[in-house]
Amino acid sequence: MFCQAIQQCAKNLRNLETCFDKAEQHAAAKNFDVGILLTSRLAPDQHDFIYQIQSACDYVKAAAAWLSGQTPPKHEDNERTIDELRERIRKTIAFVESVNDAQYAGASERKITLSWAPGKIIGGLDYLLQMTIPNTYFHITTAYAILRHNGVDVGKMDYLGPINFVDA
Amino acid sequence: MFCQAIQQCAKNLRNLETCFDKAEQHAAAKNFDVGILLTSRLAPDQHDFIYQIQSACDYVKAAAAWLSGQTPPKHEDNERTIDELRERIRKTIAFVESVNDAQYAGASERKITLSWAPGKIIGGLDYLLQMTIPNTYFHITTAYAILRHNGVDVGKMDYLGPINFVDA
Repeated sequence: MFCQAIQQCAKNLRNLETCFDKAEQHAAAKNFDVGILLTSRLAPDQHDFIYQIQSACDYVKAAAAWLSGQTPPKHEDNERTIDELRERIRKTIAFVESVNDAQYAGASERKITLSWAPGKIIGGLDYLLQMTIPNTYFHITTAYAILRHNGVDVGKMDYLGPINFVDA
Repeated sequence: MFCQAIQQCAKNLRNLETCFDKAEQHAAAKNFDVGILLTSRLAPDQHDFIYQIQSACDYVKAAAAWLSGQTPPKHEDNERTIDELRERIRKTIAFVESVNDAQYAGASERKITLSWAPGKIIGGLDYLLQMTIPNTYFHITTAYAILRHNGVDVGKMDYLGPINFVDA
């Protein structure tokens, strides 16, 4: 289940690429630089679009690493363009996909430490359910909301992406 | 795991009550009716705050029901005040807490039908990971973002709520 939950987070990250496409189309149609959207934010003291993507990526990358007994690869926060953000998502997904189901064996018994909570640990399942999932979807949704608020024609189905329906 | 994942969604719903408190304090300090926030939205063609809460509640309620072999209780979408939204969250959580771990036995083998996808079914784990979790956190985050955008002093820790850290 750890593997599927983390891979689903990665799929929802990938769905942002459709939102990126629509952001580019919107900027082109309105004749403005798409970079303006990348530095947009919903409140002056909230982080911008670029940070939302970086942060979403990092929560997914960290979960795939720590819950499979690895140290996360370092991804510098130096993206400035939409193509660089696409690349950030792609290398995050590539790392997540490099971790197979067997490597998550014992994930629920792992104890995870977080840099911002010195002297504390959190169990693997709590880490997945209380940190990885809420934070990943928080930052993906905030990125989506920045575009939506700025007139980009994104919709819920872009966010959800493909659903594994089968015929009844 | 189904039980813990769904109960965590319910906990994140409960965390919204702190955001409600802050919304009321902000409206009082600025001398406006908090109801204005409840009908606020991030884009003219996106749903308002009230709908975001109703929808988040319904995804959690539906998961607790369908994945434990029950029909979800009907909660009318008639909330108009912040106290009514608090009550909506409370009755949702009460229902989720009425379902115990044993009732989720076999949840991953259940086949779920969704009203908006006639003739289709989705497996229990896909339903949890692709529908319940992304939609619940989408609507909670959007509700949070509406407040944040309108100057309410909410922060990420309000959204995350208590984390099960233990001493290292």
